[in-house]
Formats: sequence, C-alpha cells, structure tokens
Amino acid sequence: MASFISLEAIKSIIEHLNPVEAMEKAFRLYSTEPGRVVVPPVGELIFDDPPGDVHIKYGFVRGNDFYIIKIASGFYGNPKFGLPSSDGLMLLFNQRTGVLESVLLDRGYLTNVRTAAAGAVAAKYLAPAVVKTVGILGAGTQARMQLEFLARVRSFDRALVWGLNREELEKYRHDMSRPGLEIELTLDAEEICRRADLIVTCTPSTRPLLKKSWIRAGIHITAVGSDTPEKQELEAGILEKASRVVVDSRFQARTRGECHHALQAGLIREDRLIELGEVVAEPSRGRVADDDITVADLTGVAIQDIFIAEAVYGAWKAGHLTAAGA
Amino acid sequence: MASFISLEAIKSIIEHLNPVEAMEKAFRLYSTEPGRVVVPPVGELIFDDPPGDVHIKYGFVRGNDFYIIKIASGFYGNPKFGLPSSDGLMLLFNQRTGVLESVLLDRGYLTNVRTAAAGAVAAKYLAPAVVKTVGILGAGTQARMQLEFLARVRSFDRALVWGLNREELEKYRHDMSRPGLEIELTLDAEEICRRADLIVTCTPSTRPLLKKSWIRAGIHITAVGSDTPEKQELEAGILEKASRVVVDSRFQARTRGECHHALQAGLIREDRLIELGEVVAEPSRGRVADDDITVADLTGVAIQDIFIAEAVYGAWKAGHLTAAGA
Repeated sequence: MASFISLEAIKSIIEHLNPVEAMEKAFRLYSTEPGRVVVPPVGELIFDDPPGDVHIKYGFVRGNDFYIIKIASGFYGNPKFGLPSSDGLMLLFNQRTGVLESVLLDRGYLTNVRTAAAGAVAAKYLAPAVVKTVGILGAGTQARMQLEFLARVRSFDRALVWGLNREELEKYRHDMSRPGLEIELTLDAEEICRRADLIVTCTPSTRPLLKKSWIRAGIHITAVGSDTPEKQELEAGILEKASRVVVDSRFQARTRGECHHALQAGLIREDRLIELGEVVAEPSRGRVADDDITVADLTGVAIQDIFIAEAVYGAWKAGHLTAAGA
Repeated sequence: MASFISLEAIKSIIEHLNPVEAMEKAFRLYSTEPGRVVVPPVGELIFDDPPGDVHIKYGFVRGNDFYIIKIASGFYGNPKFGLPSSDGLMLLFNQRTGVLESVLLDRGYLTNVRTAAAGAVAAKYLAPAVVKTVGILGAGTQARMQLEFLARVRSFDRALVWGLNREELEKYRHDMSRPGLEIELTLDAEEICRRADLIVTCTPSTRPLLKKSWIRAGIHITAVGSDTPEKQELEAGILEKASRVVVDSRFQARTRGECHHALQAGLIREDRLIELGEVVAEPSRGRVADDDITVADLTGVAIQDIFIAEAVYGAWKAGHLTAAGA
C-alpha cells in the first residue's frame, strides 16, 4: 500500500535535510552524466480565466529506485479566495514495476524548497563573495524562501524588497525581519539595482521589471519567476550585457524563462549558456572577477524534483522504520 | 481535503455507469469541438530493464470543473512477480484554483475500462451488423475486457482467442466462457482472420501479428495494443487495404500506434484518417457496405480519461452526499 505523506510531516523532515547540497548534486548529475538522467520536456496546461498554469515535471535517474512525477500549479488569483497561489504534489513510483510507492502531499512546498535551494546554489557559485544588500523582487512565498536560503550561502545584513503592493510589502517586512537582518521596502525597481549586490526575481511578471541600463558591474541576478514561454522578469539586453549567463537546463532555456527571449531576439547565442551543474563541477566557469555581471536563469528542472522527493521519502522511510523498531 | 477513492469503490461505481456512452460523448466532443478540449501531447517514460512504459495523459474541457492527470504504466515482466502488468491512477484538480480534489486509486482499472469502452464504440459504428465470431489477439486483462464490452454493442456466440501461451489461453477460456458464449483457442493468428468478423488486437507486440494477405472483405479490426511509436500489431499494408481507417486522434496517429508505421512507409495519407468522434457524429463516415474492410487504430486519448474520471468522481460525490443526507 502506498504511503501518503502530509505537508506537516514533509516540513519536519525538510528541517533535517540539506536541500542546498541536494540541489548541488542534482544539477551536477544532470549536467555531467546526462546518460543517467531521463527528464522529458515539461508538460504544461495554461488556463485563461482565472489565469493559471500547471507544470508536470517528471523523470528518473537510471538505477535509482523510483520514477517521479511532480505536479505544480500557480493560480495567481487564489489569494483572493484565501488560498496560496501555488499548489502541487509529488508522486513516487517503483522504477521496476510501476507500482505507486508514495504520494508527497506537499501542496507545492517542496517545489518552493527546491527552487529556493537552487537559488542558493546559484548565489553560492555566482554572487560576489561579499554581499551587503540582497535585492528581492516580489513579496510572495518564493520571495521569502529565497531570502531564507540565501542566508545559508552568504552573510548579509540588509534586504531591499520590491513589490507592487505596499500592504504586501509591509507584511513581508513584518514576517521576515530578525535581529541582524533589516528589511527595507521600495516601489522602485531601479533602486534595487542601485543598492543590491545580489538580486533574486520571484514574480510571475510577463513584462521585464529590470532594465539593462540599470545593471552595475559586479552584480549577480538570479531569475526564478519565469517558468513559461510568456513570463519575463529581465529585459533581454541584461543577458547580452552579462559576463556569464548560467541556466539550470540548456534544453529548457530554449523555450522557457529569460534566455529564450534573448535567444529569440538574437542578443545571445546558445553556446554562451553555461549549466549550473557545470559550474558546480567546475567553479571557475562561474564568477571569476569582482566586476563580472552574472545572471542565473532558473526555470526549474525535474531533476530537482527527483532529488528532493527521493530525499524526503528516504528520510520518511528511515524514520518510519526506526519508529516501528523502537 | 482531497478524497482518495479506492479501486473497490471505483469498481462498484463503474457498474452503475455507462462507459460506452461516455466514450461516445468524449470522442464526439474531441473531434467536433476541438476549441473546448485541451489535450497536450502525451508524456512518456520508457524503461529498458525491466521493460516498461509510463504514459501521462492530461488535459481538461474548458468550462468543466476539473483538470485531469492520468498516469498509466505497463511493466510487462510484472506477472513474474505476481503483479498485474498495468497500473496507474487518476488525479482531479480544480480548474480554477489548482487544488487537488480527488485521487482515483484505480490501479489502471479505469484506463482498462475506457480502452475497452472505446473498442465497443469502434465496433458499434464499424463492425459488420451481424457478428458471429469475435477474434481476440491477446489473453490478458484488456483481451478480457474488450470481449465483455463488445457484448454491449453486438450479439455473438463465439470468440476465437489467439495467444502465445497455451496455459494463459486455457485460463482465458476458463474465466470467460459463459452460457451462450463459446471460447475457442488458437496459436495460429491466420485462423483468426479466416473465421472472425470482428477482431480486436490487445497485445504489447512490437512486430506485426496480422498480415495484409490474410484480411478478408467485410472484416473489422480494432487495434488497441499499440500506444507507443515502437509497438505494432498490424502489418502496415492492412491500413492501405482498408476501406476506412479510423483513429481516436489524428494528431496522435502521426507518432503512435498502427497508423504512424503506415504513414511513414507512405502506404496511407493522413487525409484518409477519420476520427472516431467524426464517425459518432456522422455514422455514414464509418462502415457503409457489408464488404468494407474497416480498421480502428486506438492509441488512447486524454479526453477519455477526462470523461471517465469526471463520471466516476461525479457519481462518488453524489453517492457520498446521498449517504450523508440519509
């Protein structure tokens, strides 16, 4: 009988895991041993009214126990109904029989975790060594989790947060302020570029929020909001201006995220794109100089879901066995 | 909280539904109102060792309540471990919020039901009016269900069943014989073509089992086994020889099932393919003469999963409400 694991159980398991390390391993395997990883193109459903999108990411690592199917949705009008905009679940099936082994009823939490952890991996290898101010675009769940996970790879004492809604921003400051971390708010995205050394964009915007002319030398930007062909947070020229453009998946970058806009516009060439897993394997492919402008464009790859699901289920099973044996 | 509906509950609900009628409606909508139906290309995982395939079929009908994701697997070595080769489940999510509404833990049963019901729809519109002998290739679950569902649309008193394994065939005869229905067995596929008026092929074969030269005038063949690019049950020339070639989905027929072999070989042209939903809407597009040779090539379309999942969940919810009100 398959096990159904609740969000509460998953959250308590995640506290004892290291998702940043798991994502480093995931990206490294994906980029350096492609023959072991089977990750087909993302399945997608787009809804117009109310607006929403659903992504089905799935695949497996050859020789492991499971194949994974992850469903994640974003319905951006949900907060009006008192629901979070993102939702989802992960399914683990036996790779040798197809039998359902477990359903992780994570309500999209693990997608948020692995996305935030990927942002931390990007920052670890690409952000300036010294970060004083982190800039965040967006004030939703991912905007919070990115800030939390960045603290695992860089020390900083200030975050400058941009959003469209003053009330939402105030709530972000209220929730995220802690001793040693001051949260400042702004409605002016240019101010983020003037003041932050490390910027993470986490919005569902379909129009560029940051302009090429605003980008200073030495800055690092991770764009995590855009995961469909339509969404876009960065002016395409920013990618042209960057010293290094890193993507989670070169294959997905052709059709999703920030890069595909720049590729279509002829502003960058595909052979300039470096995969994050290649940077993990060989850090010199990341930031080499203080005044490098680096961009990481993360559209989210099923290998992340595979690693996080296997880690959570492995820990759950181990805990379960321990509890049963006690 | 999402509801998890067990295989037992699903089986007892199906007894009170009419899957053949549901599939007629599904195909008709799919072929005649394509703007209302969103059915992206099938997601697929292929495993080599042990051999298996997983299909993710998903989509929604605009304006309905749910979007559906169906996972179905075939691991053909499973019987060695005492497991059925097919497995799977269906997920219903709210089309306006993305919230998971229900998991139908059907272990692949609903895929078997909707596939068998589709076979009955094909036979209803395409088989000769008078069928004395049904021919079945294969002796597994689908070979049983096809025979059961065919009895809803044609009267016949004999089934001739072909398979590779004498023991499996004997078991089929033991299980499926009933008063008024004699089951005969054969290891010679040509005999099926000599004696049966209506043939259904339900194997995972990757080599043609029926040859063009064996096909008599007046025969109808429904091929349901082939759902990947590799599988093939009919010699491609059979499609060339047929008076009418009907498919569930013209789009899928380009890359899966029997037709794509014949299309690739240049033996038929895509504009010859008629969709089953077009035949349901306009029966004169099906069999018109007693000596027509007709072929239905069914690769399985998500619209079938959408209709069967919505019907089962609707009935479950209604029963639940009645029980709660009683």
